[in-house]
Amino acid sequence: MSLLVVGSVAFDTIKTPHGEAERILGGSATYFSLCASYFTDVKIVAVVGDDFTREHEAVLTSRGVDTRGLQRAKGKTFHWSGEYGDNMNEAKTRATELNVFETFQPQIPKEYLESDYLFLANIHPSLQADVRRQMSKAKLVGGDTMNYWISSTPKELVEVLRGIDILLINDGEARMLAHDPSLPRAAVKVLAQGPKALVIKHGEYGATIFFREGAFGIGHHPFRAPALPIDEVRDPTGAGDSFAGGFMGYIASQGDLNREVLKRAMFYGGVMGSFAVERFGPDRLRNLTRKEIDARFEIFRELTHLE
Amino acid sequence: MSLLVVGSVAFDTIKTPHGEAERILGGSATYFSLCASYFTDVKIVAVVGDDFTREHEAVLTSRGVDTRGLQRAKGKTFHWSGEYGDNMNEAKTRATELNVFETFQPQIPKEYLESDYLFLANIHPSLQADVRRQMSKAKLVGGDTMNYWISSTPKELVEVLRGIDILLINDGEARMLAHDPSLPRAAVKVLAQGPKALVIKHGEYGATIFFREGAFGIGHHPFRAPALPIDEVRDPTGAGDSFAGGFMGYIASQGDLNREVLKRAMFYGGVMGSFAVERFGPDRLRNLTRKEIDARFEIFRELTHLE
Repeated sequence: MSLLVVGSVAFDTIKTPHGEAERILGGSATYFSLCASYFTDVKIVAVVGDDFTREHEAVLTSRGVDTRGLQRAKGKTFHWSGEYGDNMNEAKTRATELNVFETFQPQIPKEYLESDYLFLANIHPSLQADVRRQMSKAKLVGGDTMNYWISSTPKELVEVLRGIDILLINDGEARMLAHDPSLPRAAVKVLAQGPKALVIKHGEYGATIFFREGAFGIGHHPFRAPALPIDEVRDPTGAGDSFAGGFMGYIASQGDLNREVLKRAMFYGGVMGSFAVERFGPDRLRNLTRKEIDARFEIFRELTHLE
Repeated sequence: MSLLVVGSVAFDTIKTPHGEAERILGGSATYFSLCASYFTDVKIVAVVGDDFTREHEAVLTSRGVDTRGLQRAKGKTFHWSGEYGDNMNEAKTRATELNVFETFQPQIPKEYLESDYLFLANIHPSLQADVRRQMSKAKLVGGDTMNYWISSTPKELVEVLRGIDILLINDGEARMLAHDPSLPRAAVKVLAQGPKALVIKHGEYGATIFFREGAFGIGHHPFRAPALPIDEVRDPTGAGDSFAGGFMGYIASQGDLNREVLKRAMFYGGVMGSFAVERFGPDRLRNLTRKEIDARFEIFRELTHLE
């Protein structure tokens, strides 16, 4: 089944203790669609500037991503510059140049309107809500947001939450959104705002999915998937979007939605996140095989399962 | 098989967002032995003062803990006072009164010398090393330490690490001990100092066990157990010692040591930690049943396992 993502395509300048990279391809929709492409057909809606070349686009199309929804605008592509300290859990933003992103109005191509699965990556909540309205027939809608929108556009975010089935955010965002330092309590409060399920990403500790009582007909017991504690984290950029790509991509590939599918989706999310951080930018995500992905899935199982 | 723990028995004054408690029974050896008592025979060595009453001792003996190794000294029992803020992950110490603990010299009763399993709870590394020498026949030795000893007595700690089979510490202590912000790398460095296995406790995110290559004949793949994201944390005091008690207690109950036993021990550690935080002090640990413990073990499995 096809999966549409609306988000950012960007150039990132990144510094980590392992090195630096300048203006490499990034953005939430890039990480998401590359990761999801290993599971299902992916369509992308985003805006790019004059500096976005055919070679950049080929990164997406060579993975089969449908780029007809890439809008080209006069000016430069969104540019983010950030630096990670030793613990790698948080980026310090050095510069955010919105450029063409500032006036982005997502237009869903006609050919995309039949997509059953929709992911609203981290962009202004008003744009997310607009896309949600255009995609009124979507069967399952996932979404992301960030601390900036939680504090600056809370009303717009409330509307978005009503239209999202599964929200994926991190620990800090969950606490902020619920005004509650306890994650389990925060989950209950966020789920009361609309989503049927909430995935809280814990960085190196994995992620937990919480369910609204009765959601998807599967009760409300949470499920926790690990992250990989083995490999060197070279660049954490895009790990969360990669998680979301693996998670939503796997769900879209299954058609049927039940607890087991959601549990496996949590694992595939963690698996794709673990690949993402192994190299700078989305480099590691360009030439994986499903066999490599499934081999790592088994490592995740081994890491967590009793006999 | 019997399990000997050497550590602290204390009175704790605790403040959390859920309430306060004054001079309630606490200490690493208390939490540890109560939790381990659900799995195996437990013997305790610690020091107490004049203010330690028969009622206090009955908390231990009513769980079958052998208290012949409780040393009575003139003066007051060790007193710790601490406060937890909203996130409950870190205590702010308000007062530490060592009292009789200041001159504590652990003496292992003759009847204890045959214990196959030994746990060196968090006390001065020199005392841990001393006990280790007295218990030279122990089959398996677990141990704990804390940031204070890591920074103030590094040489003494090095000796202790050589005599410990399984070290249980938390994230911050692992990073500090290895001088490395990456937990997987820190694990490798700590394991090079002696222990065959290292359990890193991640608080609300669970715990990971790392193995030295070839340790226990079971390879070196880590294993991660969850913590329970459901219940209210009322008082986190003793959660780490409770984890250690469940972990070591289960191992001692099995005799045979293999990967599966260690994995299940990680789960039982998490289970006992999850009970510990439900009420103030060790209250919740006094009247559990093995049936309740195993029911929660199954919740932990459900929380993490694919079909």
